Amino acid sequence: MADIELNILGCGSALPTTHHLPSSQVLRVRNKLFMIDCGEGAQLQFRRQKLRFTQLQHIFISHLHGDHCFGLPGLISTLDLIGQTREMVIHAHADAEKTLKPMLDYFCREQPFKLRFNAIVPGECIYEDRTLTVKTLPLKHRVPTCGFLFEEKEKQRHLIGEMVAFYNIPVKQIPDIKAGADFITPDGEVIPNNRLTREADKPVRYAYCSDTLYHEKLIPYIEGVDLLYHESTFTEGLAERARETFHSTALQAAKIAQKAQVKQLLLGHYSARYTDDHVFLQEARTVFPHTLLANEGMVLPITGK
Amino acid sequence: MADIELNILGCGSALPTTHHLPSSQVLRVRNKLFMIDCGEGAQLQFRRQKLRFTQLQHIFISHLHGDHCFGLPGLISTLDLIGQTREMVIHAHADAEKTLKPMLDYFCREQPFKLRFNAIVPGECIYEDRTLTVKTLPLKHRVPTCGFLFEEKEKQRHLIGEMVAFYNIPVKQIPDIKAGADFITPDGEVIPNNRLTREADKPVRYAYCSDTLYHEKLIPYIEGVDLLYHESTFTEGLAERARETFHSTALQAAKIAQKAQVKQLLLGHYSARYTDDHVFLQEARTVFPHTLLANEGMVLPITGK
Repeated sequence: MADIELNILGCGSALPTTHHLPSSQVLRVRNKLFMIDCGEGAQLQFRRQKLRFTQLQHIFISHLHGDHCFGLPGLISTLDLIGQTREMVIHAHADAEKTLKPMLDYFCREQPFKLRFNAIVPGECIYEDRTLTVKTLPLKHRVPTCGFLFEEKEKQRHLIGEMVAFYNIPVKQIPDIKAGADFITPDGEVIPNNRLTREADKPVRYAYCSDTLYHEKLIPYIEGVDLLYHESTFTEGLAERARETFHSTALQAAKIAQKAQVKQLLLGHYSARYTDDHVFLQEARTVFPHTLLANEGMVLPITGK
Repeated sequence: MADIELNILGCGSALPTTHHLPSSQVLRVRNKLFMIDCGEGAQLQFRRQKLRFTQLQHIFISHLHGDHCFGLPGLISTLDLIGQTREMVIHAHADAEKTLKPMLDYFCREQPFKLRFNAIVPGECIYEDRTLTVKTLPLKHRVPTCGFLFEEKEKQRHLIGEMVAFYNIPVKQIPDIKAGADFITPDGEVIPNNRLTREADKPVRYAYCSDTLYHEKLIPYIEGVDLLYHESTFTEGLAERARETFHSTALQAAKIAQKAQVKQLLLGHYSARYTDDHVFLQEARTVFPHTLLANEGMVLPITGK
């Protein structure tokens, strides 16, 4: 199992269809789960994909349209019922707290866990732990909207076990060696670090961009990411409709991917009017061949290689 | 197609499972749809069952627990997006308006239709049209809860076309004949009504009872109904747990059905801990053989015969 995996819980758009659920994803970073958007039915899909509620502590909501957050009451209510005790943080626009909290307080009366709303300030780092940061990305939609950039921190080099044993390196010096220091033997011999360690894994970067107009200002923030999820609500035949509703076409998503030189593009947020999603794939691949279609149940490993 | 059909959209209980959706049903009475409870995902299941949003104008919410109403924001939002213009009435406990309205107003800003909350007064008739009434049923749960009794009004007798032609009955007298009047020919001959008409269809009665403790006071209200939906969250092995949580066992549901001499019993609201629903069926049928298990996608004709 890869260290980092993206689970697609839903990749449809606002109107319900029988082939897609509204937006929701779960990024697993080792044993932590980060939910990104929470459309209606997210908790059910979460269960279907055998994810664990106890590993979920942070939910990131890109914007306050129903198809990106109407799954929150049900999810929070379930955490309430199963007696989850760890704090749950919802990172969202400042209006989320005043809009959702009264309802959550009414329906989730037990709340053994603390529910905290973190009002997103665009441009700031909104989450950080030992190995990961989450920053916002500028998007352009009908209401205040941001994307999310998940970035692993620089990783330490891999120790070569045999060399550690050969030079009998004391345990207390291991952290320095992993950080790149040379080793000096009791006899004063300098063993260069590259004989003791192998190169660190490249930090993984994942960018989530939904919903947005074609927006080139986004490009510098996502340059070279390992995976870009970019909405493609329409195809070029409905480019005018995309502009009016502040959405993108598959071709526009591909152009952003190409200009930002990302490694891989994942499309989603398909309009309900399309019955065959492959039209998005075909259109995007004319510009950016490394494109995939999101689909409910998909689990995509993301590596920095 | 029968005049009246019950569509099961969801028949699970509070915790999400991969085999059931939370409570929601749609009773179709000719070309009108009545939704009963609206758990998360109801609008998606509504679509799956090829029901039409434009035929839906009344939603009845039995009580304000999330698994019976968290589908409302998504459903109302969809009606908003598709530009539905007819009034939509949500019949629910008085708290529904203050709890849900702020959220609906924030997310459904267009609202081309009027959304009206009708605060349920137990014991009163809460809906009436030309052919149907809806009354509340007394249930006993942890929060104020009521069931719903859908009753067709007395129907008119069926005209026998050949006799109408034979006696050359004027059109303006047809309503009286259907209502049971005899016909007097221009010569003064009295043609008794039973030669001109056949017996009227029996009015259909459907009772929805979820969630509730075993509650015998309910019985006189539902006596002889054509179909009783009664929750069976647990089996007898967990009768104590049923009591504590104000729910019923399958056996208790069957006893209510038997004592009320209903024609058919439909079980649902199964606890997430059961993986095989047939345990409910087996238990109920020991007391009341005419028992069925609700399941998502089920369409059950209800007739008064």
